[in-house]
Amino acid sequence: MKIPKAIQNLVESFERLPGIGPKSAQRLTYYLLHVPQTELDKFANSLEFLKKNTILCSSCYMIAETNPCDICVSENRDSSVLCVVEQPLDVIALEKNGKYKGKYHVLHGKIDPLNNIGPDEIFINQLIERVKKANANGHAISEIVLATNPTMEGEATAMYISKQLKSSTSSADGQNSKVKITRIGRGLPIGADLEYADEITLQKAMEGRMEY
Amino acid sequence: MKIPKAIQNLVESFERLPGIGPKSAQRLTYYLLHVPQTELDKFANSLEFLKKNTILCSSCYMIAETNPCDICVSENRDSSVLCVVEQPLDVIALEKNGKYKGKYHVLHGKIDPLNNIGPDEIFINQLIERVKKANANGHAISEIVLATNPTMEGEATAMYISKQLKSSTSSADGQNSKVKITRIGRGLPIGADLEYADEITLQKAMEGRMEY
Repeated sequence: MKIPKAIQNLVESFERLPGIGPKSAQRLTYYLLHVPQTELDKFANSLEFLKKNTILCSSCYMIAETNPCDICVSENRDSSVLCVVEQPLDVIALEKNGKYKGKYHVLHGKIDPLNNIGPDEIFINQLIERVKKANANGHAISEIVLATNPTMEGEATAMYISKQLKSSTSSADGQNSKVKITRIGRGLPIGADLEYADEITLQKAMEGRMEY
Repeated sequence: MKIPKAIQNLVESFERLPGIGPKSAQRLTYYLLHVPQTELDKFANSLEFLKKNTILCSSCYMIAETNPCDICVSENRDSSVLCVVEQPLDVIALEKNGKYKGKYHVLHGKIDPLNNIGPDEIFINQLIERVKKANANGHAISEIVLATNPTMEGEATAMYISKQLKSSTSSADGQNSKVKITRIGRGLPIGADLEYADEITLQKAMEGRMEY
């Protein structure tokens, strides 16, 4: 039996997406055959203009509609605090509760030697430059929260950034910078069970204990 | 924070697909931001032409490139055997091993009163007509294999079709038709464990035992 080219093409496009295997790709394609053409056109249109109608903010590297993005130009946000994250989706997750009032810096990745991603492949230099420039302009940054993921690569990235920031800011003006570098809290997530937590999480939770 | 309209649109389109929730839709969308524009255009194009470049075969109701489809016009297939399935994907599954040499009839659904799908919403009447017409033209159909899913709705659909076929063929020429109506074999799937099989499967497996 010959499967129509139009179906094969769409199955192949779906298969390239992460987490979608051949079976799911087939199911999605055959599902879409029952959907009105206007819906398909809308979907196609969204795909075509996804990149054309978005832009990277040249300050924080978030994906946005304008450059600089709305967080970077907002006067309600504290410019002296920077939160460094791996991905744009991390910003969305942190923005959901609306408690954090500082600004962001999106790295668009993590240092990952196994996948040939070194410090120059992600926006680390841009972060260093941004901090230096802010200090030079008198809008000193007081705190940098390293919020990369608590994974092997995320920790390595945080450590690398921390070292780079310390050396670059201290060497520039001959004295230690006043930028406080912090790491996002690690410990037990809400709803977790002590019994099933792994050793490192428990160790970090003990280290990160706070007065009650 | 304002999420760009271009991103929101695509997230919404993905969310409408079965089995893709808000989180997956977001992840897929942000993944596609890192994909070259040519790939996006190809994906968009596949979506747009999915329905435009396919057609329902007017004989078996399979989704195909031509009407009638390649199975219906093939001279290597046995026109006297018809396999009735619920969905086009079922035809693809049955064609994979290439053992079945008869033709198909795709119902595009099953009788499902809870979802307001009665016998007239799926291609049952077309099946009856097809069998009658074949008999009238002298290309008599000798066997109809009911291969709807062994679920509550699939069994009900098979039973309804069987009754309809028997009454329509017997009433037409005043005598019982010679069309053999069979149901696809039910029992233990290969690799299964007797211990964990449910009662009805075991009952069907006993009923369907064959000489060894």
